[in-house]
Amino acid sequence: MQIVSVPVRPDITVIQMMGYAVFAFIFGLALTPWFVSFLRRNKVGKQLRVEAVDGREATVFRTYHQHKFGTPTMGGLLIWGSILASVLFSRLLSLSAVVEHSLLQRGQVYVPLFVMVSLGLLGAFDDYLNMIGAGKKKGLDWLPKLVTLLLISGAAAAWFYFKLGYDQIDVPFYGAMTVGIWYVPLFMFIIVGTANAVNITDGLDGLAGGLLTIAFGAFGVIAYIKGLDVLAAFCFVCVGSIAAFLWHNVPPALFFMGDTGSLALGGALGAIAMLTDTMLILPLVGFVFVIEMLSVIIQLTSKKFRGGKKVFRAAPIHHHFEALEWGESKVTMRLWIIGTFMAFAGVILSVFG
Amino acid sequence: MQIVSVPVRPDITVIQMMGYAVFAFIFGLALTPWFVSFLRRNKVGKQLRVEAVDGREATVFRTYHQHKFGTPTMGGLLIWGSILASVLFSRLLSLSAVVEHSLLQRGQVYVPLFVMVSLGLLGAFDDYLNMIGAGKKKGLDWLPKLVTLLLISGAAAAWFYFKLGYDQIDVPFYGAMTVGIWYVPLFMFIIVGTANAVNITDGLDGLAGGLLTIAFGAFGVIAYIKGLDVLAAFCFVCVGSIAAFLWHNVPPALFFMGDTGSLALGGALGAIAMLTDTMLILPLVGFVFVIEMLSVIIQLTSKKFRGGKKVFRAAPIHHHFEALEWGESKVTMRLWIIGTFMAFAGVILSVFG
Repeated sequence: MQIVSVPVRPDITVIQMMGYAVFAFIFGLALTPWFVSFLRRNKVGKQLRVEAVDGREATVFRTYHQHKFGTPTMGGLLIWGSILASVLFSRLLSLSAVVEHSLLQRGQVYVPLFVMVSLGLLGAFDDYLNMIGAGKKKGLDWLPKLVTLLLISGAAAAWFYFKLGYDQIDVPFYGAMTVGIWYVPLFMFIIVGTANAVNITDGLDGLAGGLLTIAFGAFGVIAYIKGLDVLAAFCFVCVGSIAAFLWHNVPPALFFMGDTGSLALGGALGAIAMLTDTMLILPLVGFVFVIEMLSVIIQLTSKKFRGGKKVFRAAPIHHHFEALEWGESKVTMRLWIIGTFMAFAGVILSVFG
Repeated sequence: MQIVSVPVRPDITVIQMMGYAVFAFIFGLALTPWFVSFLRRNKVGKQLRVEAVDGREATVFRTYHQHKFGTPTMGGLLIWGSILASVLFSRLLSLSAVVEHSLLQRGQVYVPLFVMVSLGLLGAFDDYLNMIGAGKKKGLDWLPKLVTLLLISGAAAAWFYFKLGYDQIDVPFYGAMTVGIWYVPLFMFIIVGTANAVNITDGLDGLAGGLLTIAFGAFGVIAYIKGLDVLAAFCFVCVGSIAAFLWHNVPPALFFMGDTGSLALGGALGAIAMLTDTMLILPLVGFVFVIEMLSVIIQLTSKKFRGGKKVFRAAPIHHHFEALEWGESKVTMRLWIIGTFMAFAGVILSVFG
């Protein structure tokens, strides 16, 4: 017999995990009408993108997305707000001795929560600049944004390396590989890379939201099997909150998550991959995010070194598929299918690899 | 420690399971262009539904589905054809001693395969009558259809009861309950009920296909955890085949599965629930199918006993949501979200309940 041993969870049971996820879902869904009208009152609307990834005019984008001008954005605030509220709710329950454990657990939840909230604030600032600079300036410049990302991820990396003592990465079919202090730049690369990849993916109604729901669900299962039960509960809370957002974000979207959503959730996803020691599983679970990022890199490189020649009709790749006349919801649904399949492969490989 | 023991699988490894699923997916996808042009050449097109569930004119339906007239149907042939091809392919591999086990396994795969193919043929006959009777007659009458369904499910039930010795059902939080010969009618009820529920659900682009992918995936995990590894591989083959169909069935659909798809896959799903002894988990994993079926029953009952008063603007319930102006792909995506969530709850409950 091959034995998969699962530690006893005296404090957070599977039913309680589901309970927190449902709480987050209902909390998010209940606040949505109020939140959307708040965004509308304050004119937090989407500004039309006029430039492609290389700075020229984005013709494909404009063709398919003209109608989205003015749709409320910064919905990400509600997502990570609901996650935060659920974590605090569990803390309240534990303070009043209803349950023994809260989700606010030092070794498992501090880092993803820290990354999520700090990147969420950075993204919100970016969204805000984008909004007030309507048409002229496109949010934060890349340099201060990158520096802030590096500072935040560096702080989290240092906590992992010095406080929690992480200095190895797990390689499927091989085993643990000690990387020493290289753990810190690797960690920073994962956080910054994932945050940006999700940010790039967030360009069609329901696309990033659906893929994030899938990815957090997959990491919830991975965390649970690895015995990180509080982290698993946290992942399912993320699933609940994102699903509540997704409910109104499927095409035609009522509102968008904005940079505050994509950076916060992308960063948290990266941190969770590091916590569960599945850095090399992350590109499978987040397969579509990786492809989207690569499509931008390939497009830019090709334009630069092949005299302006493009590889894709438009980048990121979801706009390429739109240019092929698939239709927006078809692109979203097909990328969901691929995402689900690859996330499933990731879970299998992390458990049996 | 709470121990979840997973038996060793010397013959079908997880990687092989994934391999079969990928084979089924690629097989289905590769044959699609040829198959769709075959359907078009033979004018196997969708006939416009003109009657609601109670026999009156279906106004809501016509409003939203007029454009679908003539879209090829009977795509289900390709789905269960790909599943059959994958099972035979694994048999070939085992005959030529490439692998030790084939998917053609008496105790685990015979019954779902038998139910799938026989209900698939019944559905194909129904689709055929529907097509040639265009507008006038609506396929098979309900009585010969029901009798055939009962005969097929009765044969499978007898095999389970007499040959495999099943006479208990598992009740979550309680344990095994011996039901004796009542197992036979229960089994028949599950097969006929699931086949019809999936049939009713199959009314929007991508809806039944997506929910079936989710449900077979969930039962794949359940079967694997219960040590039914060949059945798990069979479930993943179904996931691959249905996903290949879904690729071209998401809105706007290239083709539909037809009764041959919904009856075959619904029946197989019911048989798999019985094999894994999760009859009471099935309504969770197939939650949306149950809701769809109930919506029809409630609507008919209300019209009959409340002097024609309707509960829903249209039944099945997905047409009600369309009548609320959600838009077709939004209804599909939201029901996918609910389906995923409930399937997940079903897996958790079956493993830890």
